Amino acid sequence: MAAIKLHGNPFSTATMRACASLHEKELHFEFVVIDMKNGEHKKEPFILLNPFGQVPAFEDGDLKLFESRAISHYVADAYGDKGTRLICNEPKKMAIVRMWLEIESQRYDQAASRLVWELKVKPMYGLPTDPAAVEESETKLGAILDFYEKTLSQSKYLAGECFTLADLHHLPTIHNLMSTQSKKLFESRTHVSAWVTDITARPAWSKVLAMQP
Amino acid sequence: MAAIKLHGNPFSTATMRACASLHEKELHFEFVVIDMKNGEHKKEPFILLNPFGQVPAFEDGDLKLFESRAISHYVADAYGDKGTRLICNEPKKMAIVRMWLEIESQRYDQAASRLVWELKVKPMYGLPTDPAAVEESETKLGAILDFYEKTLSQSKYLAGECFTLADLHHLPTIHNLMSTQSKKLFESRTHVSAWVTDITARPAWSKVLAMQP
Ligand SMILES: N[C@@H](CCC(=O)N[C@@H](CS)C(=O)NCC(=O)O)C(=O)O
Ligand SMILES: N[C@@H](CCC(=O)N[C@@H](CS)C(=O)NCC(=O)O)C(=O)O
Repeated sequence: MAAIKLHGNPFSTATMRACASLHEKELHFEFVVIDMKNGEHKKEPFILLNPFGQVPAFEDGDLKLFESRAISHYVADAYGDKGTRLICNEPKKMAIVRMWLEIESQRYDQAASRLVWELKVKPMYGLPTDPAAVEESETKLGAILDFYEKTLSQSKYLAGECFTLADLHHLPTIHNLMSTQSKKLFESRTHVSAWVTDITARPAWSKVLAMQP
Repeated sequence: MAAIKLHGNPFSTATMRACASLHEKELHFEFVVIDMKNGEHKKEPFILLNPFGQVPAFEDGDLKLFESRAISHYVADAYGDKGTRLICNEPKKMAIVRMWLEIESQRYDQAASRLVWELKVKPMYGLPTDPAAVEESETKLGAILDFYEKTLSQSKYLAGECFTLADLHHLPTIHNLMSTQSKKLFESRTHVSAWVTDITARPAWSKVLAMQP
């Protein structure tokens, strides 16, 4: 099998997303730590892999990729016979998975990543949290999670009865928000709360967290 | 064949994106106009199709979808044997298409849609354009298009020698920006400019524009 390499930082949400897919597929890969404190992601050789200077970047033999959601989807597609399924062959079922992939990236992630920034990253760097931004993002995220609650009252996972990439893509931001005040948005919704408990307990996810020193 | 319905507005960029995929696939479909001036997208029956109250929404028999990029991908996937190919079967080739789908939705669209808002939509509603927002977005879009220029100097389309969904997803914002000052960002880059000329001249795209009254 061709050598798989993931370049990134074990605390970056985007890196964790790609990493989760590799562990779900039970693939062996080399994790190349990018020293972001020293700006390694803005210099060669890293920017030859991602000209936008952001982690993660990925290699599988001659294939070079960036964008965490494209990496996880490639892994799910190319290694279909290994580990967890993550995607579907049937076009109508896969359409529902893809709709949820879009809901995560177009709607959920905008609010959730803003909250991670305000409530986790800024305090880590000694920067002041902006309470107005937190309130606005929590209101938005709450409205989005109302639709998740409705969906998850009808099926175990977002796109049906099986865990897919659509669920997986939420893991890094959920993990970060569960140690902030915003965890109330997840815990106050019965079905969302059960879903969070279920997906964060996956063995592949524990392996992602175990990579954090 | 099951009845395909696209609910939306012929001037909405997201509706145009879904519509372009249907025309590339030479599919017959019913276009259901949603009267956004009268807030039809915020009321039943439309919000039963998209709880977030945004166009477009889509039906193909029993399948109901929203999110323009999920709709176009379903159309490309389910009707693989009709019209233009738009996607690839080979995992490594499809990974490159997906990386470009992410670059469009995660990077390009944020800057481009902001410019469409400031330079096209606001003036239409008699609202003042924010020059600082325009400058910031033009700088961002310019940096992104530098990478497009490099890519398009090596291949005819973003993901290789064939027109794919990755190119198609850019059409609505490009079309809107080509009648604003921001067209200079596209025209000043030789290969980007040739790509814009090529993809906006596609017969399927003319059919999308012909739907605008
Ligand atoms: N859309 C990209 C986002 C990547 C991203 O935002 N990476 C962050 C870490 S989570 C980063 O590299 N930040 C440093 C920077 O932007 O300079 C993806 O999903 O891969
Ligand atoms: N991510 C969505 C965005 C949809 C969207 O922004 N639709 C706009 C028209 S282009 C809309 O319905 N705006 C009215 C509103 O937000 O109230 C998609 O791609 O379908």
